[in-house]
Amino acid sequence: MPSTSESPPAEFTARVENRDARGRIVLVCEHASNAFPDVFGTLGLSNELQSAHIAWDPGALGLARGLARRLDALLVHAPVSRLVFDCNRPPNASGAITPQSEMYPVPGNAGLAPEGRLSRVEAVYLPFQNGLHSEIARRLTRGPAPVIVTVHSFTPSWFGTPRDVELGIIHDEDPRYATAVLAEARARTRLKTELNAPYSAADGVTHTLRLQAQPYGLANVMLEIRNDLIADAEAEEAMAEMLAPVLEAALAAVDIPQSTEIRG
Amino acid sequence: MPSTSESPPAEFTARVENRDARGRIVLVCEHASNAFPDVFGTLGLSNELQSAHIAWDPGALGLARGLARRLDALLVHAPVSRLVFDCNRPPNASGAITPQSEMYPVPGNAGLAPEGRLSRVEAVYLPFQNGLHSEIARRLTRGPAPVIVTVHSFTPSWFGTPRDVELGIIHDEDPRYATAVLAEARARTRLKTELNAPYSAADGVTHTLRLQAQPYGLANVMLEIRNDLIADAEAEEAMAEMLAPVLEAALAAVDIPQSTEIRG
Repeated sequence: MPSTSESPPAEFTARVENRDARGRIVLVCEHASNAFPDVFGTLGLSNELQSAHIAWDPGALGLARGLARRLDALLVHAPVSRLVFDCNRPPNASGAITPQSEMYPVPGNAGLAPEGRLSRVEAVYLPFQNGLHSEIARRLTRGPAPVIVTVHSFTPSWFGTPRDVELGIIHDEDPRYATAVLAEARARTRLKTELNAPYSAADGVTHTLRLQAQPYGLANVMLEIRNDLIADAEAEEAMAEMLAPVLEAALAAVDIPQSTEIRG
Repeated sequence: MPSTSESPPAEFTARVENRDARGRIVLVCEHASNAFPDVFGTLGLSNELQSAHIAWDPGALGLARGLARRLDALLVHAPVSRLVFDCNRPPNASGAITPQSEMYPVPGNAGLAPEGRLSRVEAVYLPFQNGLHSEIARRLTRGPAPVIVTVHSFTPSWFGTPRDVELGIIHDEDPRYATAVLAEARARTRLKTELNAPYSAADGVTHTLRLQAQPYGLANVMLEIRNDLIADAEAEEAMAEMLAPVLEAALAAVDIPQSTEIRG
């Protein structure tokens, strides 16, 4: 088992792609992977459930990579299933190591002892969020201030009810960039696009934005794409081709502070 | 020079004392040290200025240690002078590597090249803030939710003008704990105590609170003690003896959420 050491197993550190990217956007994919590392086991899930939407956001990483190429953007993603630890949740959230996802129990997460919980925080959450923080701080140092975009996908049906929304644009306290992205998406695409749907900050889905963007006053948005629209590599590319100009155009529309003058 | 590697020189990592402390308060001292490591040099400062208040917060670490003992509190402090890098400032703030402090120029910080700036972020800022984040996340995982208290000192005279305030209680967006600490300090001590003086969040002094406490909804406060009141070890102990009951009593007065229920 991972110890409480500062050095987690190398395979669980945040994955960083395009580290030398010159674009302003930093893409983040907390639910990129459905990997269940041996050290944590398969949590009692069938092979089928290990590949289902409860384990990850299918299509999100492929879409994010397509966006990263088109926007010359840094991409940071997590290498472990969100059922092991959901990096978009604080360590004290019940949903961070959820005992049930949609209608599916996750046996390996039920009644997890405090030390088991801590092991997952050490091995998965801290390397991801501290690694992402380091990348953002480096870009903030060099300037210009990065813009944070988290990329997620959602299932077309939730507890048996179909969802009509195709693209969700979600914000937390700072709606600047989300508002601009919403306007550009509606102007440039035919996607059924909604603000703060199918989730909103009240559902606890904006942890990364709160932790990484808001303390630095960085413009930010969370994207949710219905996963039937990015179900294979070709569809991911087509969606990236559609959304890259949306994110780029919205960037031009917001006034983002470059630095903070401090005294004292 | 430090590289952009993930592993900074061990001597610059965040200093952690009382890691197994059972108290709820986490004490933070960003300006604990007036060390000028060889790798960065003395920035062109005289020996006298390297020991002056511009280089650190004299008395703050001694006071924080006195509080840590009395409150059974974790203590995290930075091992490098704030003139090398001010860990209580974001990397893009001019004050993070200030070319002038009060009326004193800091020659080694004037015209620093971007790579020099980045080296200090890598070597000082990131190890400190990521290290502090790890400690806070561990405590959040185990519960109860920690309460963050940053400990600072200020000079009795600023640009030649004397300051009357003895104890400053400073908050950012969440005033819960600060309000309670203010009331307890006024009730239990004769210190001339002011809210948001001699600095306030508008002066950019609450970066650590924004970065470490607010994203998790943790109660927090910044303390500023006039440094002539903690000028030697005996005075530091006396101040700790006075302030520990204030912090403890205020803790009982605020309702601090223990966890966050998440869905989605």
